[in-house]
Amino acid sequence: MRLNLFLFIVLCCLPQGVRSEDGSQLWLRFSKQERAGHTINIRGISPTDATITLAKEELLNYWNGVDVTLQLDRKHQRLKGGYQISQDPKGIHVVAGQAIGLLYGAYHLLRLQETGRQLPHLPIIEIPSYDIRMLNHWDNLDGTIERGYAGHSLWKWHELPQKLSPRYEEYARANASIGINATVLNNVNAAPQLLEANYLIKVKALADIFRKYGIKVYLSVNFSSPQILGGLPSSDPLNKDVQHWWRSKVKQIYRLIPDFGGFLVKANSEGQPGPQDYGRTHADGANMLADALSPHGGIVFWRAFVYQPTKDDRAKQAFQEFVPLDGTFKENVILQVKNGPIDFQPREPFNPLFGAMHKTAKMLEFQLTQEYLGFSNHLVYLAPLFKEVLDDETFAYGVGSTVAEMTGRNRRLGSKTAIAAVANIGHDTNWTGHHFAQANWYAFGRLAWGNSLSAEQIADEWIQMTFTRDREFINPVKKMMLESREAAVDYMMPMGLHHLFAFDHHYGPEPWGNIPGGRPDWMPWYYHNADRLGLGFDRTIDGSNAISQYNLPLRNIYNNKSTCPENLLLWFHHVSWNYTMKNGNTLWRELCYRYDHGVQKVREFQKVWDCMEKFIDQSRFHAVQSKLRIQVRDAIWWKDACLQYFQLFSGQPIPYELERPVHDLEELKRIKLPMGHHN
Amino acid sequence: MRLNLFLFIVLCCLPQGVRSEDGSQLWLRFSKQERAGHTINIRGISPTDATITLAKEELLNYWNGVDVTLQLDRKHQRLKGGYQISQDPKGIHVVAGQAIGLLYGAYHLLRLQETGRQLPHLPIIEIPSYDIRMLNHWDNLDGTIERGYAGHSLWKWHELPQKLSPRYEEYARANASIGINATVLNNVNAAPQLLEANYLIKVKALADIFRKYGIKVYLSVNFSSPQILGGLPSSDPLNKDVQHWWRSKVKQIYRLIPDFGGFLVKANSEGQPGPQDYGRTHADGANMLADALSPHGGIVFWRAFVYQPTKDDRAKQAFQEFVPLDGTFKENVILQVKNGPIDFQPREPFNPLFGAMHKTAKMLEFQLTQEYLGFSNHLVYLAPLFKEVLDDETFAYGVGSTVAEMTGRNRRLGSKTAIAAVANIGHDTNWTGHHFAQANWYAFGRLAWGNSLSAEQIADEWIQMTFTRDREFINPVKKMMLESREAAVDYMMPMGLHHLFAFDHHYGPEPWGNIPGGRPDWMPWYYHNADRLGLGFDRTIDGSNAISQYNLPLRNIYNNKSTCPENLLLWFHHVSWNYTMKNGNTLWRELCYRYDHGVQKVREFQKVWDCMEKFIDQSRFHAVQSKLRIQVRDAIWWKDACLQYFQLFSGQPIPYELERPVHDLEELKRIKLPMGHHN
Repeated sequence: MRLNLFLFIVLCCLPQGVRSEDGSQLWLRFSKQERAGHTINIRGISPTDATITLAKEELLNYWNGVDVTLQLDRKHQRLKGGYQISQDPKGIHVVAGQAIGLLYGAYHLLRLQETGRQLPHLPIIEIPSYDIRMLNHWDNLDGTIERGYAGHSLWKWHELPQKLSPRYEEYARANASIGINATVLNNVNAAPQLLEANYLIKVKALADIFRKYGIKVYLSVNFSSPQILGGLPSSDPLNKDVQHWWRSKVKQIYRLIPDFGGFLVKANSEGQPGPQDYGRTHADGANMLADALSPHGGIVFWRAFVYQPTKDDRAKQAFQEFVPLDGTFKENVILQVKNGPIDFQPREPFNPLFGAMHKTAKMLEFQLTQEYLGFSNHLVYLAPLFKEVLDDETFAYGVGSTVAEMTGRNRRLGSKTAIAAVANIGHDTNWTGHHFAQANWYAFGRLAWGNSLSAEQIADEWIQMTFTRDREFINPVKKMMLESREAAVDYMMPMGLHHLFAFDHHYGPEPWGNIPGGRPDWMPWYYHNADRLGLGFDRTIDGSNAISQYNLPLRNIYNNKSTCPENLLLWFHHVSWNYTMKNGNTLWRELCYRYDHGVQKVREFQKVWDCMEKFIDQSRFHAVQSKLRIQVRDAIWWKDACLQYFQLFSGQPIPYELERPVHDLEELKRIKLPMGHHN
Repeated sequence: MRLNLFLFIVLCCLPQGVRSEDGSQLWLRFSKQERAGHTINIRGISPTDATITLAKEELLNYWNGVDVTLQLDRKHQRLKGGYQISQDPKGIHVVAGQAIGLLYGAYHLLRLQETGRQLPHLPIIEIPSYDIRMLNHWDNLDGTIERGYAGHSLWKWHELPQKLSPRYEEYARANASIGINATVLNNVNAAPQLLEANYLIKVKALADIFRKYGIKVYLSVNFSSPQILGGLPSSDPLNKDVQHWWRSKVKQIYRLIPDFGGFLVKANSEGQPGPQDYGRTHADGANMLADALSPHGGIVFWRAFVYQPTKDDRAKQAFQEFVPLDGTFKENVILQVKNGPIDFQPREPFNPLFGAMHKTAKMLEFQLTQEYLGFSNHLVYLAPLFKEVLDDETFAYGVGSTVAEMTGRNRRLGSKTAIAAVANIGHDTNWTGHHFAQANWYAFGRLAWGNSLSAEQIADEWIQMTFTRDREFINPVKKMMLESREAAVDYMMPMGLHHLFAFDHHYGPEPWGNIPGGRPDWMPWYYHNADRLGLGFDRTIDGSNAISQYNLPLRNIYNNKSTCPENLLLWFHHVSWNYTMKNGNTLWRELCYRYDHGVQKVREFQKVWDCMEKFIDQSRFHAVQSKLRIQVRDAIWWKDACLQYFQLFSGQPIPYELERPVHDLEELKRIKLPMGHHN
C-alpha cells in the first residue's frame, strides 16, 4: 500500500514526453492545413476523375505551400505513370500523362514538405523504374498469414463485401504514396476457393476501393483449380476443357473487376500442383493462363522458386529448370525470381537467372516480411539488401548489366517490367509489428519507383516523415538502420553461411537441426557442411559447380577462394578452419569475431536508441526499445548456438578476448518455439 | 545421419584433457602412497585410541615425506584441540594434548604436502580460535533441506541406523581435515520427532561414526517438545514437569551418546514456539535447557534471530530484546548471533549485539548455503565476507574489540567459545552443487580454526588441493574468487541495499514485491524505501535510530552520510538521488555504475575461467563454466530489474554510456520461480 502510494505520486510526476503515437499513420503524419492561402487548380480532360479528385483533396488538406496546378496531358505518355513538377511565379505545376501520375506528384510535394526540402530550380521529372510495383500478400482465407508476423490478415474475408474496414483505404493510400500499384491479395500456396463467385465479389469490393489509388488487384491461383472448382478430370494445361475453364473464369473475373491485374502462380514447388503433374513444362502452364488473360490485358507472374529433393545442389535447380524454356513464354508472362538462389537468406549471391534467359521477361521478388531476419522482433532495414541485389553485376552484357538493369528495362518488346515483394503487413495497429519494419515497406515502394535511390536517402526521408525532422535524431538512427542488416548477418550467418535456421519456424538457430528421414535440403547440415576440416558449401567447379551458372568473369571470381568476396566465402567454398582471411584471422577466429561483432552492434543500437527518448513519443520509443532488447537476447542466442556447435568441429577455442557464451549448447538444443503460422 | 557421422568422428578426435573428476573428493584428493620410505610412530599414553590410529593411517596412506612421530602429551592442554609440529634430523614430531590434535596435525602435514610447502624452521604451534567449530544443518526429517541447494539431505533417516552410507564417514573426514568438531544435524525450525527414541538411535549411529573424527553431534530442538512428545499441558520453562521432562530426555540422549554436544534453539522467532508463549524470557527458556544439559557437559546455543511484526525497525529488535537479559544466562548458554542484524544479506553491517552484552557468551552464525547469494548457481567466495565481519571493530573496549575478539575469547570465565555456519552440504555428488561452493565450507572450517588467516591464503590452499598447483591456474582463479563476493553485492544490492529478493525463494530480484496484507518486514519496499526523493533506510538518529545500538564512535560515523562507509550508505540513510558520492557521481549514477560493474565482473570471471580449460578435468571445467553462464544471465536480470524499477522513482536515465537493459521491467515482474524447498 505504501508502495502503491509512492508509485502513484511518482508516475504523476514523470515527464510526459511527446504526444503518444501508435504507428497507425505510418509515414503519412501530415498536419491538416487551414483551407486558406493557396488554391489547387485542375487542368486537363478529366477533372472529375476520382484519382485526380483525390490528389486535389490530399493537397487541399495537407499542402502548406504555394498554389498548385494539376494538369493531365495525354501527350506525356513517356512519363508512364510518372509526372513532372515545375515552378513559376504563378505556382507549382504538376503534369502527368495519366491521372495516377498526378496523385503521385501530389505525394511527392507532400514528401518534400514533410522533409523540409525546397523544390529544385529545374523541373522534377519522375518516371518509375518498373511498370508494375507489387506487394505479394501471403494471406490465407482463414485470416492467418504464412510468414506473417504482424497479426492476422488485413482482409476480413468473412465480413466482405458487406463490411469495409477503413484500413483497406488506408492501406491503398499508403501504397499510393510510395508508388505501389499492384497487390496480390492471397498466399502463393493458394486456396482455390478464392476463385469462386462468392469470393470474387469480395475481391471486387477491395478492387473498388483500391482503384482510385491506382492499385490493381491480382490473385494467386492454384493450378489444380479446374479440377477442384470445375470438377474437371484434369488440370492439364494442354487440355481444351481446362483451357476453356480458365478462359471462362478469367472472363467472370473481368466482368466484376475490369482492371483486374492477373495471376501469380507457384507451381510444382514445395508440393503445389503444376503443369509437370501432366508431363508439361512450366511454359505450357504459364502460357495457358497467359492466353486466358491476354484478351483482357492481364498478366501471369510465374514463380521460378522450384527445387526438388534430388541429389543436386538446391541452389542450381531453378536455373536448370527454367533456362531451357527461354524464349517459349508468352509476352504477358513474367518470371518472378527470388533475389537469391535459395530463399531470402540474410545474405545470398544474386540469383543467376537474372543473368540468363534473355528472351524471357524476369522480375525480382524480395521479401519484406522478415521470415529469416528475426520476424517483427529484429530491427533490420532491408534497403541495403535490396540495393546490393539491384546493383549486383550479372555481366550478361558486360559491365553495367546489373540485376536492376536486367529486370528494369524491356529486353523483350511489349513485355511490362515488374518488381515484387512479399508484404510484411498485418492487422497490427502499426501495420508491421515492429515500427521500423514500416521502413521496409516504404523502402520497397520507393526503390520500385526509383531503383537508383540510395538506401540512405530513403531512410532519411522515412525517418523524417515517421518520427521527427530533428537532425540529432535522424543521423544516429539512420546510421543504425544502415548498419542493421549487416549486424543481423553477423549474428546469424556471416561470411556466406545460410539456412542454419530452426526447422519450420525460421526464427532461431538450429545448425544441429536434423529430422531423420526429412528432405536433406531442408536441413542445416546440407548447407553448412561443417566437418573436421572446415565449413561451407563447395559450389566451385570441384563441388556442385553452381558457379557455372554465373556469367564470366563472375564464375571465376566466385570459384576462387582468394577472389570470392569474403561475405560469400562459405556460400561458394568449403573452407578449412585454419584458412587465412584477408585480415589475417583464421576462418575460425574470424567466424567468432563476426558473431561477436553482430552482438556488440545490436548493443550499440540499444545505446543509440535509448538516447532518442526525448525526441519522440513514449509509446513508440518504448515499443522499439523492447524490440531491441529482444534482438540483443536473440543475437546472443544465435552467437552462442552457432559458435558452440561449430566448435565441435573446429576443435578450437573461442578467442578468449571475446565475450563468453552465456548459454550451454545442450540447453539451446532444447529450445522448441511453438510457432506454426506465427499469427 | 551424415551429421551424426561427423559428430562421431569429431568427438573421437577432441582432446581428452585431464582425467574427469566429479568433485566428490573435495579438497582431499591425496594420492595413495607406496608404503615405503617412511614410518609413522606413535608415542603417548593412548596408542590404541581410534582417533590416533586414524591419524596414523592417514599418514601411512598419503604422507610422502620423512618419518613422523605422533605424540599425545596431556601436559599440552594449553594447545586445546591444537598441536605443535617440529622437525629434527630424526623426522617430524607432532605433539598434542588431546588425541584429536594429532589427527589435526596429520591433516596439517598433508595440507603442506599438497600445497607444496616446506615445514618452517620454527615449530608450528596451532591453537584453534574457537572451542566449538560447528556446522548447522537445516535438514528436515523428510530429506528436504531448508535453503538447501545441493540436493536432498545427507542423512537418510529412513535407512538409519541399519544402513550407514559411506558418505557419513567421508563427511566426518572432510570436516576433521579443516578442524570442524561439531554438527547440528537438523533444521532450527525443528521437528520434535527427532527426540523420540526411534530417532535417537539413528542419531547415535551417526555420532558413533563421527566420534573418531572428533565431531560431536548436537540437535536443534523444538521448545514445545514437552507438550508434543511428552503430552504435558505446557512447555513453560518454569514448570517443574517441563523441567523434569527435559532432564529425562537429556539423560536418555546421554545414555546413547555420552559425548552428545547439546541443543540449538530457535525460539519465539518466525512462528517457532518459545518461552515467551508463557510470559517467560529467552533467558528463562535457555537456562532451563542449560540446567538439564549441565550435568552432562552439554551446551545450549540460543539463537538471537528474533523480530516481531511491530512498527519498529526489524534491524533493532534482536538487540532490544536480548540486551536487557545480559548477565542472566547460565554459563553453558551461548547466544548464537547472525553476522548482521537482518538476515545473511550480501552485505550488512555487523550485528550490534557483538559490541554489547558483555556478561553473555556470544558466537557468530554465518551462512554457507547461499540463500541470498545465488544458491548453488553463483560463484561467490564467502571468506571475504566472513573476514569483513570478524575484523569489524565493535569499539566495545576501544580499538581492537573486533567481532573476532568479542566472540573468540572468553570474557565470561568457564564459557566455551564457538562459531557456527549454516551448512551448504547436500546429497549432490560434489556435496555443494557448485564446485566452488566447496570453498565456502573449507573457508569456514579454516577460519573457525584460525580467524587470523586471510581469505587469500585460504583460497590459495583450497585451489591447490581442489584443482591444481599450477600457478597459471591458481593466480587468476584466486583473484576471481576474491572479487566474487563484491561482484555479487554489485549486481544484487550495492551500497547497503538489502532484501530486494523475491518473496520466499530469495533467488531473483523483486524490489517491487508486495504481498497485500503480508508482514511489512518481509517486503522489499520496507527496506529500500525508494521514493521521489531518494533511496535507502533512514536508520540515523532522525530515522529508526538503529545507529544508537553501535558503540561510539561508530554510531556517529554511521549517523553521518559523509562518514558512513559508502558500501553501507543505503543501509543507514535515505539518500537523495542527486547526492554526490565521493567519486563525484550522483547516487543514481553510482547505483547504475555499480550494477553494471557487477555484470561486467561476472563476464570477466567467464573469461578467466574459459582460459583455465587446459589445467583441469573437463567435467569440473564444464560444470563451472555452465554455472558462470547462469550467473551472468542472473546478474543481468538483477541489474535490469533493480535499475528499471528504481528508475520509476529517480526519473533519471541510466547513463547512456552503460550497457543497456535487455529485459523489460514488466516481463521481469512476471517471472515466478517455482521454488519452495529448493531440493
